[in-house]
Amino acid sequence: MRLILTVLLCAAALTGQTNPAALAARRWRMQHEKAIVTEFSSLLAIPNIARDRADIRRNADAIVAMLAKRGVPARLIQEPDANPVVYGEIRTPGAMRTIVFYAHYDGQPLDPKEWVTPPFAPVLRDKSIEKDGRVIQLDTASVPLDPEERIYARSSSDDKAPIIAIAVALDAINAAAIRFRSNIRFVFEGEEEAGSINFGRILQAHRDLFTGDVWLICDGPVSQNRQQLIAFGARGVETVDITVYGARRELHSGHYGNWAPNPAMMLARLLSSMKDDNGRVLVDHFYDGIEPLSETEKRAIAEAPAPDADLMKELWLGSSEASPARLIERLQLPSLNIRGMASSRVGAQASNVIPSTATASLDIRLVKGMDHQAVVGRVIEHIRKQGYFVTDTEPNPETRMAHPKVAMVRTTDFGYNAVRTSMDLPVSRELIRVVESARGPVIKVPTMGGSVPLEAIERAVGTRTITVPIANHDNSQHSFNENIRLQNLWDGIELMAALLTM
Amino acid sequence: MRLILTVLLCAAALTGQTNPAALAARRWRMQHEKAIVTEFSSLLAIPNIARDRADIRRNADAIVAMLAKRGVPARLIQEPDANPVVYGEIRTPGAMRTIVFYAHYDGQPLDPKEWVTPPFAPVLRDKSIEKDGRVIQLDTASVPLDPEERIYARSSSDDKAPIIAIAVALDAINAAAIRFRSNIRFVFEGEEEAGSINFGRILQAHRDLFTGDVWLICDGPVSQNRQQLIAFGARGVETVDITVYGARRELHSGHYGNWAPNPAMMLARLLSSMKDDNGRVLVDHFYDGIEPLSETEKRAIAEAPAPDADLMKELWLGSSEASPARLIERLQLPSLNIRGMASSRVGAQASNVIPSTATASLDIRLVKGMDHQAVVGRVIEHIRKQGYFVTDTEPNPETRMAHPKVAMVRTTDFGYNAVRTSMDLPVSRELIRVVESARGPVIKVPTMGGSVPLEAIERAVGTRTITVPIANHDNSQHSFNENIRLQNLWDGIELMAALLTM
Repeated sequence: MRLILTVLLCAAALTGQTNPAALAARRWRMQHEKAIVTEFSSLLAIPNIARDRADIRRNADAIVAMLAKRGVPARLIQEPDANPVVYGEIRTPGAMRTIVFYAHYDGQPLDPKEWVTPPFAPVLRDKSIEKDGRVIQLDTASVPLDPEERIYARSSSDDKAPIIAIAVALDAINAAAIRFRSNIRFVFEGEEEAGSINFGRILQAHRDLFTGDVWLICDGPVSQNRQQLIAFGARGVETVDITVYGARRELHSGHYGNWAPNPAMMLARLLSSMKDDNGRVLVDHFYDGIEPLSETEKRAIAEAPAPDADLMKELWLGSSEASPARLIERLQLPSLNIRGMASSRVGAQASNVIPSTATASLDIRLVKGMDHQAVVGRVIEHIRKQGYFVTDTEPNPETRMAHPKVAMVRTTDFGYNAVRTSMDLPVSRELIRVVESARGPVIKVPTMGGSVPLEAIERAVGTRTITVPIANHDNSQHSFNENIRLQNLWDGIELMAALLTM
Repeated sequence: MRLILTVLLCAAALTGQTNPAALAARRWRMQHEKAIVTEFSSLLAIPNIARDRADIRRNADAIVAMLAKRGVPARLIQEPDANPVVYGEIRTPGAMRTIVFYAHYDGQPLDPKEWVTPPFAPVLRDKSIEKDGRVIQLDTASVPLDPEERIYARSSSDDKAPIIAIAVALDAINAAAIRFRSNIRFVFEGEEEAGSINFGRILQAHRDLFTGDVWLICDGPVSQNRQQLIAFGARGVETVDITVYGARRELHSGHYGNWAPNPAMMLARLLSSMKDDNGRVLVDHFYDGIEPLSETEKRAIAEAPAPDADLMKELWLGSSEASPARLIERLQLPSLNIRGMASSRVGAQASNVIPSTATASLDIRLVKGMDHQAVVGRVIEHIRKQGYFVTDTEPNPETRMAHPKVAMVRTTDFGYNAVRTSMDLPVSRELIRVVESARGPVIKVPTMGGSVPLEAIERAVGTRTITVPIANHDNSQHSFNENIRLQNLWDGIELMAALLTM
């Protein structure tokens, strides 16, 4: 064991990984792998869909206990009708700055039927399900654990992974008696996947608790080539649900087919009108107001590796949407995505009917300079231009009869805009240095593809945000069979140790 | 009661309804309304999805018993791996012709969750569900029953209604001692809604039992204005299921949106390419070979009433697919209909993913002169022309990576062609005369919109087919909440009495 440790630490030094806290974290982790997986599994076993208030509370209490166990004073910040924020603080005498660590402990809604093993019964598999990974028993597994093993459960990556990583990093820092240099604040949100609807309000109500020189957003995946990345911005998001109408009830497709309008076909036509063959959104003014990239940002994109070819193989893709543009380039642009579509039934349940309605759910990802409400307005205007009468409530019979085409278009109140922190700021430069000292060369991304409610944070507490992810890219987050690869969790612990002591 | 009867019978005479068997059926029905509804409900309570063999057998046995009770020798005709055909026969000494009555006792597949009351627990409602009809108790209802009442259950219209109508008509004929003039054969199929895959084989195996001068197809709805109609043909049908592929798994729409192909958008584009804004199918050669209408057929179409405006109101429609073409004209053409469409999830289950697959199920209705297999070939060719590699099996990773666009296209083995019997044949002319003597002026339709496996019948036993429907058009057949309006059932009994004694 001692020999393995020594070899590994030498290897780390050779690749530039010289951060003492990160190295302490590695030593600690190698001695406690099973205990870490066990503690993490206990947290993952608590269901965490934002709308289930009682479960959410159990999560929050568990995380408070995890921090308290590491000597970090922690508590719940509770506002009416909002899920609690878990708050913790490490005050460092003489510190010249405050770093806020953000993560969220709620998970995406799910359909348990789609999961191979239940989403809230965490299991360890020897590899990914796509590679026929089998469940292995932790207590009989040999140590060290194979770093290609994965933990399967909702939020194993998104976004409880940083929470366990921070907890273990604190253990290692404490054990090695490494001193903190900054004031540290922990802010773990409980309804990010429900659109963070209350988060801005909570921040404003307790503004003093939440200020900091920088918020480190611990969320999202690292690069597809498994290299560490830092994202200086994140896309905003908005969802739009569209329902179009045919007859008041499903009709026999023989007795009415060719005469009654088919809403599935109407929807297909409407959706087709929104994008061209190269993935360019055809909604008028969709791209207006976008803030251009700086020279540093352009250079970072050019220097970033291009995992595109490997990724296409891994995902069984024969083409990308706008080939030959690289993934990282495409993520610097806004997107319009059909996230779900339904009309009557397919498969064994299909029958010969003309559907009565057809529904699509879209999500739109925004980049800096776009306003999410204005974008929704432009999409609605586009639908009108296709000949639709647009309403935001279920249309009554009179409305349906008065117009050849009727669409109900609804958006959530949860949308928010993109943010982007300059890579040229001193805090940005130091962060890059610290992360590279722990994890080797990093990929610097101006805007990552995913969305986190950074705009609300920046506005509420007057700070800036930078994202430091740890999850593997192939973690199936937001879908079924979400998982984290052990090596990513191990790396995440080292990353957090370095950041906590910067 | 006697006074009501007399008044009604006089009214019937004034509208030309002078058929003695039909009038006898009316008298009988008025004296036995509750018993009729009770017997029908017992039959409807037996689940009848074609794939459920045990239930199907219970239906078949029940129908044999119903015929036997009326003195009609009946039995099951059973071929290996096929649902039984119920067969009954009335031999009439000196008869110069044989009339075969066809109906089917199986029903469309269903999802019970969509039904207001369970599909196999028949209930009587005071009016339709759309008009907030409430369940009423038969035993405490006053007689005569309100003819606007409806029986709700799977197959209440499609297609057990003709079976009970025939049974009750036989009661009335027997009670009034009216004599038969033709040989009568009853053929009740048990897998029509599964595509009649075995019916041709059964007919051929027992050809002598099934020959007749004409087959009367007792299926489908009457006109939207509730007027009796006779259909001299029916459209053929074919189904085509299309699945298009994105990445091997659902992807986070933030981290991959704009780069990974979205199969829902691909499907929308593909479906849009199949029809123009006026409902014309854009598949090359789709309309090739169609047999033109005769002068008699064109006249019948011109004379048919146009319920279109009323129907649009009833269905809450602001437009029809190819306005100003009338419904009856549109049904003389082939159709291509999206019967269902699905990709990931919508509504509360929606999440921010790029779907992995998108599926649509189409049904194609054919008219005389088109070959169903050739049409499928043309649709596949169309999909290829949109840039797809087409396979009929689940594509493997290599196939998916080798082609920018991959579609799995599957068709059932159940498709069949359209048929059309000339209105100018002597048997056609006599049938029109008999039906009008029972039901007043009828609408004569060259080809009705729905499909029944008439081609297999005509080919197997060398006969011709004519369709005499009884159900209300607004019966929700093939969908949830299927029902029959009592007046349609009453009219159907009179119609069957007239046809049985022609």
